[in-house]
Formats: sequence, structure tokens, C-alpha cells
Amino acid sequence: MEIPNHSFRLIQTCPDSSARAGELITPHGTVPTPVFLPVGSQGAVKTLTPEEVKDIGIAMVLANTYHLYLRPGITVIEAMGGLHKFMAWDRAILTDSGGYQIFSLASLRRVSDEGVIFRSHIDGSQHSLTPELAIQFQEALGADIIMALDECPAHDDSFDKVQRAMSRTHQWAERCQRVQKRSDQALYAIVQGGTFPQLRRQSAEFLTSLEFPGYAIGGLSLGEPKRVTLAMTEETVALLPQNKPRYLMGVGSPEDLLEGVARGIDIFDSALPTRIARNGALFTWQGRHNIRNAAYSQMEQPVDPDCNCYTCRTFSAAYLHHLFSCQELLGYRLATIHNLSFINNLMHKIRGAILNGTFNSFKDSFLASYQPTDEDVRLSQKQKWLKSRNLSQ
Amino acid sequence: MEIPNHSFRLIQTCPDSSARAGELITPHGTVPTPVFLPVGSQGAVKTLTPEEVKDIGIAMVLANTYHLYLRPGITVIEAMGGLHKFMAWDRAILTDSGGYQIFSLASLRRVSDEGVIFRSHIDGSQHSLTPELAIQFQEALGADIIMALDECPAHDDSFDKVQRAMSRTHQWAERCQRVQKRSDQALYAIVQGGTFPQLRRQSAEFLTSLEFPGYAIGGLSLGEPKRVTLAMTEETVALLPQNKPRYLMGVGSPEDLLEGVARGIDIFDSALPTRIARNGALFTWQGRHNIRNAAYSQMEQPVDPDCNCYTCRTFSAAYLHHLFSCQELLGYRLATIHNLSFINNLMHKIRGAILNGTFNSFKDSFLASYQPTDEDVRLSQKQKWLKSRNLSQ
Repeated sequence: MEIPNHSFRLIQTCPDSSARAGELITPHGTVPTPVFLPVGSQGAVKTLTPEEVKDIGIAMVLANTYHLYLRPGITVIEAMGGLHKFMAWDRAILTDSGGYQIFSLASLRRVSDEGVIFRSHIDGSQHSLTPELAIQFQEALGADIIMALDECPAHDDSFDKVQRAMSRTHQWAERCQRVQKRSDQALYAIVQGGTFPQLRRQSAEFLTSLEFPGYAIGGLSLGEPKRVTLAMTEETVALLPQNKPRYLMGVGSPEDLLEGVARGIDIFDSALPTRIARNGALFTWQGRHNIRNAAYSQMEQPVDPDCNCYTCRTFSAAYLHHLFSCQELLGYRLATIHNLSFINNLMHKIRGAILNGTFNSFKDSFLASYQPTDEDVRLSQKQKWLKSRNLSQ
Repeated sequence: MEIPNHSFRLIQTCPDSSARAGELITPHGTVPTPVFLPVGSQGAVKTLTPEEVKDIGIAMVLANTYHLYLRPGITVIEAMGGLHKFMAWDRAILTDSGGYQIFSLASLRRVSDEGVIFRSHIDGSQHSLTPELAIQFQEALGADIIMALDECPAHDDSFDKVQRAMSRTHQWAERCQRVQKRSDQALYAIVQGGTFPQLRRQSAEFLTSLEFPGYAIGGLSLGEPKRVTLAMTEETVALLPQNKPRYLMGVGSPEDLLEGVARGIDIFDSALPTRIARNGALFTWQGRHNIRNAAYSQMEQPVDPDCNCYTCRTFSAAYLHHLFSCQELLGYRLATIHNLSFINNLMHKIRGAILNGTFNSFKDSFLASYQPTDEDVRLSQKQKWLKSRNLSQ
């Protein structure tokens, strides 16, 4: 199906990896790929104005249907003229379906073929989400790219359990496709299948037969070993069509982005760069550094002298350290601007390297100097996720 | 004494009130008066970048010597090239002496003629402040205007107690003047005397005889009835020289600013506009409104349709309400931008009215439509202040 004002143009593939550079045309502008989407769960990239997000060079953000459904409510945003207008963001938006948050944040009451009944993590009120409602909500929000509802199993669930979740995800994808009314939104399906190559293949084959305009890979990076994440990504991408965008959900550390791009991924999203920024962890080309460290208390240089972001252009590391010591909100902003700039800059360099045929050497040299730091933050969040799932099932 | 690059030019006085318009020349730019200074206690106007503060039109900010002394430490800021460079603010700065914070925030150990011994409100560590140290610290910070150390009595202290504090303030002012080394900073003295007209007069007369380049009125707006604040302001201003700037400390609500200007005040500072913004209280020409109120949950208009600030130009009241519901940090920023814009705009209009001889009618018409709201926030803070003083004496 042709979607007006939507298309994906593959510009360059790599001779010695699956990395590729392209362009995603949306009703709200062209998005160069590979691309990383910052997360604006509540209709704001935490701490930043839309102008700041633009100044960083971000072309598309992700917003969470689950959060916006609970607060302020889908009807409010619809009455305000849709999500773009509500959050004053005139570039592209992708909304997730709400599925992942229901399985991670909310307290799950019942999953059936019909849909999910859950309790709000805010006030415990009961709600339900079905594939039909997921589309209805996302059509009301009006993002450029919307996602089919999926069931996301835990990384250590049994084969049978993962297979059942996959089959349900397939039925739900069909139902989402069937009820879609708006012709100006691209609906992506989500490949599931856990860490079972056989199921990943089955899922990719089934969903591609339905001819979605794009495909996401869900249910990964949830606590399984990183080599498994990468193997599953590879397995899945191999069965996805060349001419459609591929989206690896929930991945956003520099090292993971490079590995994802090397395996043919075009789109990434993750709250990691903005979340760790608020904890004082800042990306540099040498690795993650924590600005709370006393070593920064008298450093006149910026955190990252190679960086051209507003934070590094304007302030010393000592000032940023001071703001974090005092818990001044400005500190969280400045760290967020830096981390998003770093990631956006990294994606830009990755794309440039693909275009001029040097991606592999760029990747090797980046990973040689970058210390892939402690994954404490990422892992602790995933552990919480798993715990909440085990408790609720 | 002439101070290079510093001067105060009186441009216009009012025929039917003591209101006056002028210009304060500082090494970091010209400040039109009457002027309101936002508070940047820790070297940042809470939540905002220096660019945002500039965009609002602010020409001078206040920073707190006490806070900066405790964190990051005066020597750190000095090593970073001074406060202007540290906080990336190239317009004017006024630093207070630290006295008020020691008497309100810190736990007071001993006040003697020599100085004050206090414990940090952060970690309980013991420190001392003397007039000589207050100047030494402020010279190291490098603000354009610096303040003499004063002893600030409570509003209900006895005549004797207030008189003793006043005499000590006078001695301290002399000592401050004596040890001042930098010739590019204007040192203002602080008139004390509590709510006793006789002491106010005595204090104003003594301090003006020392020929400071500017005079502050301290020890007011601390819980005494508002008519007393105004009467004391009037009493004091009457004895201050026409050709020197007058600074009423700790006053910043719209209604108080108008009353202060009417009594001949040129400079004001207060954390009120920024503090109440973070609680969701927003200024409008009709009075203070709280954005958390459910009435705003679906309002497509901005909070204040008459306002041209970034917040009101860009977002609906519903969006701001939503950000506050979710405790998104962006909400605190947007509210701060609005409140500072409102106050800056008000000062601009006040100045215009003085210049064209319509100040009294402007004041009357503003106060007729503006609901001088509940002073809960202001009062509760002052009560805390009084409580902490009683506990520590």
C-alpha cells in the first residue's frame, strides 16, 4: 500500500556489513537514517523545549501512547489539535502502541486474544487496550509513524510461552492493519519470537507477508546476553525486506547503536541517553563519565572538549559539577543536551561513514577508544522490568 | 568616591509620588531602573540558561555569597575566572553579603562585634563570616555591585535588640568600606532599624554620612504587616540621597513592586516569582493563577493571552497543566520563564509610565484589576525564617 507523503529511500549499502544509509520521508519532514529517536514519554523530551531538541538536530522523537492515554488523556490531546500541536513539535513523531509499557510499568490483570486489561501505575485504575484501541488512540494522537500492538514476553520465558505471545502478536498486527483509517500514518508491525531463532524467522516471515511499510524488532535488549541480542537482530533482519525501514526498539547506547547499524537497523529509540544524563553520566568519545565525580570540581574545560553542543560551548565541567552537587534543575538540562547531541552526532558520523564506504573502520576505531562502561543503569532497569512481570503473572 | 564604569543617572522623577526612573551604569552594561533582579542563589536562575534569562530582558541578577561560599566554594569560582565567567552571564550581577542567609538558613552559633560563627545548613560544618571576609569573598566573585555585611533582626525583636543590631551593622559597614580593594565594584550599605522609625532615621543618617554609592533597605518584609513595611520604606527613603540608587531587599510581588516604586525604590530582588512558578503559580494581569487547577486541563489558549513570553507564545495552558501533572521538569522552566517575563514586563511598563508622567494612574489601574492573592507562600517562608531564628537564639 502506498502511503501519501511517506516513503523510505535506500541510498547506500555497505560492501562489508549490513549497514545502510537512507531517508525516511514523513509528512513532518525527511529523516536521515540510521536515526536515533529521543524519548518524549509524556509529550516532552524530559527537561527540553522543542526548540532545544531541534537545535540538537533531532528529526524525529518517540512519544508513549500509554503515558499520554493516562495523562492528559487521548481526547484532550485530540481536542488540542493533536500531539504535534500539543507539544509544539513540527518535525516527525513515532508513537509506540502502549504494549511495552503495559507489560513493564502497569500491573497486568489479564491478557487474552481480545486484548489486555491492566491497572494504571499512577492510580491503580483499571483500563483495557486492544489492537483496535491502540490504533484508535494513535490515530487521535496523529504521529507520523504508529506501531501495532504486540505482546512482549520476558527474555527467559519458555518456548511455548514465547510462541503463544508471538502468535497473538501476529493476530493483533492483522487486526491493527484492518482497522487503520488514516492514510497519512505509516503503521509498523513488531517482530517477536524472543531468543528463539526459529520463532524470530517465523514472525518475520508472517509479518512481512502482510506488507507493512516498516518493521520493528521487539522483545530484545531485556536482560538477555548482548551476543544473543545481536544474534537475534541479525537473524530477524535477514528476513526483512531491503526496501522497508527496520526499527530496533529500546536500544540507545553508543556501542549498541553501532552494532545495530552494522546489522542493518535504520531506526533506534531509547530513554537511556536522557535518563543517564539526569544521573550525571555523560557520553564522551572515550566512554561514559560521571560529572558528579570530584575530579570535575575544578575543571575549567568543558566535559567533552571535542563536543560542539551548547553545554560544552558554554560551560566548564566545574560549573556542571556544581549544578549537580546543588541538584539545580539546569544541570539535568545541560547534561541532557550534551548526551542527545553526542548520540545525534554519532549517528551523523555513522551515516557519513556508510556513505563514503568507511563504516567498518569507523566502527572499529570508535569501539577501540570508547570504554563500553558498566551497564548498571541499563541492567538495573531491565531487572525491574523482569521482576514486575514475574510478580504479575 | 568615583568608581570607574559605575554611575547612577536619575532621568525622571514623578510630580505626584516618589517614583523615579533612572539608569545604573555598571561594567557589565546599563540597567534601566526601577529594576527587579531575579535570584540565582547557586549561580543559576533556577531552571534557566543565561540565554533564556537574557531573552526575557533581564539586565542584572542576584547571586548569594553564602550559597556559593558553601558550594562550590569561593576559591573554585575565583579559579574559574570569576562568577560572570563561571555562570556564563555577561550582564550585571549583584551579590549579597551572605548575612541574611546566615541569619535565616544557617544555624547561628554566635554573633559578636567581630562577626558571625554559623553552621552550614547543608552539612553542619562550622564557618565564620566577618565584614572583612564578606568583602574578600565578594571581591573574589567579582560581581558589579556588592553588599556590606549586616545583622538582620527579626521583625518583632525588642527596641534594644534592634538598636544593637543596627549599631553593629553600622560598624560592619565601616569596616567593609575600609577593606574594599577592588575599584570596579560598587559597595552598597544596608540600612537597618527594624520597624522603629527613630532607628531607621538614625541608620539612614549614619550610613549616608559614609558616602556609599548606593543604599539598601534591609530587615523588612519579614512578617510585619504590609503597611508597616511601606511606612518604614517611606521613612528610610526620605533620608537617602536623591542621586544614589536605593534597593529594597527581598521584595518581588507585583503589588509590592508598585508600592515600592511609588516610595522611591530603584532596585528590588526576590526569589518569589521563580519559587512560586515552580509551584505552578503564574502571574497574570488579573492576579495569580495556579496552573495545577483542573480548569486549565483543556484550555487551548495560553495561560495569559496578553503575554508575549516564549511559554505563552508556544504552548497551551492545557500543555503546561499536563507537564505539572506529570512533574515534568520542562513545566517548571516554562512557568519560570513566564513569571520572570511578567515581572520584567511590569517593570518596563512602570518605567514607561514614570517617564511619561502617568505612573500614579498606571499603578491605580493595575491594582484595580490585579487580585493581590493569598500570600500563603511568602508568609509560610517568613514564618520558617522566624522559627529558625527563635530556635537558634
